Amino acid sequence: MTNSVTKGQTMLGIQSIASYLPKGRVDNLEQADRFETDREFVEQKIGVTTLPRFEAEDSVVSASIAAFKSLCEKVSVDPADIECVVLCTQNPDNGGLPHNSALVHAELGLSEDCACFDIGLGCSGYVYGLSVVQAFMAANGMKKGLLFTCDPYSRILNPEDKNTCLLFGDAASVTLISDSPRYTLSSAKFSTKGAGSEALQKNSNLLEMNGRAVFNFALQDVPKQIKRVLESAELKMEDVDLFLLHQGSRFMLENTIKRAGIPAEKAPIKLAETGNTVSSSIPLLLEKELDSSPGTILMSGFGVGLSWATAIYTQVK
Amino acid sequence: MTNSVTKGQTMLGIQSIASYLPKGRVDNLEQADRFETDREFVEQKIGVTTLPRFEAEDSVVSASIAAFKSLCEKVSVDPADIECVVLCTQNPDNGGLPHNSALVHAELGLSEDCACFDIGLGCSGYVYGLSVVQAFMAANGMKKGLLFTCDPYSRILNPEDKNTCLLFGDAASVTLISDSPRYTLSSAKFSTKGAGSEALQKNSNLLEMNGRAVFNFALQDVPKQIKRVLESAELKMEDVDLFLLHQGSRFMLENTIKRAGIPAEKAPIKLAETGNTVSSSIPLLLEKELDSSPGTILMSGFGVGLSWATAIYTQVK
Repeated sequence: MTNSVTKGQTMLGIQSIASYLPKGRVDNLEQADRFETDREFVEQKIGVTTLPRFEAEDSVVSASIAAFKSLCEKVSVDPADIECVVLCTQNPDNGGLPHNSALVHAELGLSEDCACFDIGLGCSGYVYGLSVVQAFMAANGMKKGLLFTCDPYSRILNPEDKNTCLLFGDAASVTLISDSPRYTLSSAKFSTKGAGSEALQKNSNLLEMNGRAVFNFALQDVPKQIKRVLESAELKMEDVDLFLLHQGSRFMLENTIKRAGIPAEKAPIKLAETGNTVSSSIPLLLEKELDSSPGTILMSGFGVGLSWATAIYTQVK
Repeated sequence: MTNSVTKGQTMLGIQSIASYLPKGRVDNLEQADRFETDREFVEQKIGVTTLPRFEAEDSVVSASIAAFKSLCEKVSVDPADIECVVLCTQNPDNGGLPHNSALVHAELGLSEDCACFDIGLGCSGYVYGLSVVQAFMAANGMKKGLLFTCDPYSRILNPEDKNTCLLFGDAASVTLISDSPRYTLSSAKFSTKGAGSEALQKNSNLLEMNGRAVFNFALQDVPKQIKRVLESAELKMEDVDLFLLHQGSRFMLENTIKRAGIPAEKAPIKLAETGNTVSSSIPLLLEKELDSSPGTILMSGFGVGLSWATAIYTQVK
């Protein structure tokens, strides 16, 4: 079934993925008018016309459960088989106590023999989370697990700050990690520049973002990491079928893609209807792109921390 | 050097451990008077006479850095060698954005080639964290990493709630995970009962605890998991030299130890000067007990989630 798995070792990877966008919508062009910002700038540079937003009834847990229901329409999942639930967020329900993965565990009625923990990471969270979950499951002999992402930045947006209000959308995703994978991890790198963390931080429960610093970071550091991961996987740019970069903003994406030397047609930019959904941006893309069954996928997430992570996943033949 | 490692695979484990108690102190017997609670109950049942407490200048990051400085007095650590930093907390600085591990990364001046993420877990966090860090590091070929715990409950104590004010203390710990381990993981189990999570939760940024529910959970579920882990490691109770149970309260510990059939002399109860320090309680104990070089150690953490985790570590000969 595979060509690179050690004998006797269970191979874990991505079996399926699903997502959820809350029903609430913000018209970003109307927002542009309110902020006296050029509509063309919002459409062309930020690249976002509609932002999904949590409403009063939405929560990290309810959005995660909705994503799970969507997963169950694609693939058969017996809750009794789930041995691990990991949820990535920096804006949890209940202030993160209990960990929101435990609340999801309760809602789904999972077995007591199920490990649950939350991961605190931003835009690099999905690439990290996949590696953490797979490694933890493999080390503990687990065969089926769920990785959730849900980071509702609407909870911390300063309503007077157009830079963030025009950018961030709310979403959730769930990825089924199992011993019947469609894609397995080939190589990954994880980097941190804590000294730059002030570029994206919560202060008195409001998000502060230095857009210029984040842009410079993405352009300077992400292409380098992509090259290093390709080298460690002994692959060339042309061997990769699909590049899934964190959907920060259209302008940042276009420039990062160009700087990295990635062919534009291999790197989708699809944030017009979602905005920047933090750790959910790569899974939202991945869900859409899996229909075309790409052979080799490179994912790169970057942002809060500053943190950046790049991984290559290959299709199981 | 070892007897159970797969050829060619690097063996990771616990090399060293250090901790930090903030300078602030609450006299728990004076607190008892204020709450009109019997001093004998506080000394004998809760088992806590002094509580270390964060003062204005303390933070998750500063306490973690102080623990790291203490580590450096025990063992030579070159910051340039650290490839992974994981911090376990549910009461982070900056509302957890950025992840506090990135802030620690900045303070320690670590390399950019360092993975950083936070784990959201309570009293089971250290047992989980060790397994997560070791698995993630091994999967990614990393050789030196740091696991921090720091969960200052003083930030969320309701000053009118004697049940929690008399119980929780603030502390931090750091464990050096490396390829020169003194102890390696032999077997572990992780369990969750999300449906019981209301027994310990944050509500409007204040801790709510149902002490009776937590007590019943510890007595009912922890001994069962300890037995299962011993069975999976093919060990008997008498093969274990040291049982490090989460230091929830003296009364809960005494009863859990008795119910599990653990010889009392092998299960230290040492919370008089610290209180319940959440995910730091087991590392605080471990640091003290390592001086006697126990051959086989069983650790069991239980609480918020409800979540419980038990692991057996054996000395590298």
